Amino acid sequence: MSAPERVAPGEKRRDRALLIVITGGGKGKSTSAFGTMLRGWARGYRIGVFQFVKSGKWKVGEHRAARELGGIDWEKMGDGWTWTSRDLEQSADLAREGWEEVKRRISAEAYDLLLLDEFTYPMSFGWVDVDDVVRTLRDRPGFQHVILTGRDAPQALIDVADLVSEVRKVKHPFDEGIRGQQGIEW
Amino acid sequence: MSAPERVAPGEKRRDRALLIVITGGGKGKSTSAFGTMLRGWARGYRIGVFQFVKSGKWKVGEHRAARELGGIDWEKMGDGWTWTSRDLEQSADLAREGWEEVKRRISAEAYDLLLLDEFTYPMSFGWVDVDDVVRTLRDRPGFQHVILTGRDAPQALIDVADLVSEVRKVKHPFDEGIRGQQGIEW
Repeated sequence: MSAPERVAPGEKRRDRALLIVITGGGKGKSTSAFGTMLRGWARGYRIGVFQFVKSGKWKVGEHRAARELGGIDWEKMGDGWTWTSRDLEQSADLAREGWEEVKRRISAEAYDLLLLDEFTYPMSFGWVDVDDVVRTLRDRPGFQHVILTGRDAPQALIDVADLVSEVRKVKHPFDEGIRGQQGIEW
Repeated sequence: MSAPERVAPGEKRRDRALLIVITGGGKGKSTSAFGTMLRGWARGYRIGVFQFVKSGKWKVGEHRAARELGGIDWEKMGDGWTWTSRDLEQSADLAREGWEEVKRRISAEAYDLLLLDEFTYPMSFGWVDVDDVVRTLRDRPGFQHVILTGRDAPQALIDVADLVSEVRKVKHPFDEGIRGQQGIEW
């Protein structure tokens, strides 16, 4: 399936490349990012998704939809990344390697919209340097929207972001012993 | 484009039809619902989307993506709904007519996943009766996931929901005079 014809981003004067952070303890952070991705897709944006989650089993639904839509690069840490031949067993190494690749693609202006899913966790764990992330995202060249999701976004990141939403849990079925299920949770 | 083969929902014992409410004043409610929709789509769910927004101009991105994915019914109040030949000029009448159709489809178990986008507004405006909505959704037959978005979800609805997330605004580019832009906002 071919993606829509690309409208050069930043062409309209009102356009501005945004750094969007979706954080908080509630459900709906990643799904919100993927929903926004659909809008970028419809505009023909070159889209890159980096999922900083360990298990490759999760979030298969949105990946399948992205494949169907076409024109979306999708990289998953859970599968060990596609571009590295090294056998990185450790999550810390995998996360660092993922971030280094993201930096290369930002530098190359590979995408109009870059989605860093669950990327707060490698920062929280100290695997990826927050200052490096803040500097890289703040000083990114050209016109690149960036959407970053995950709990506990560091304050320094919130400070440089254009749009920050916090998803707060009001009620969750897990609390009542209802388990996650395919079609909703992944 | 044909949708994935349908896995009968409720087939696994862990599955339970959920009523999901995404509310709050922050950005990312509808996009979160559409992201979740991708997961249902990947499972071959029969999906119905009802957008209770006045303007047909908004949210074209996700509609375009849904058309491309296939297997998703999409009804927009902004276009006057597709099924009614009556010329309903008033938003109140349009919203009521939309809700009556939703009730018919729920009763017919037309979908495995039903998305009522921005549906809190007709309730807040008093166009659609909250008790009727609560009763209808609570007592829906069979296996039907329902996702409902919009600010100020009524407490009675939250009470019967399984999952409620509140999206809180931490920072928004509109505050700094940056206007909405295609590819992100719609």
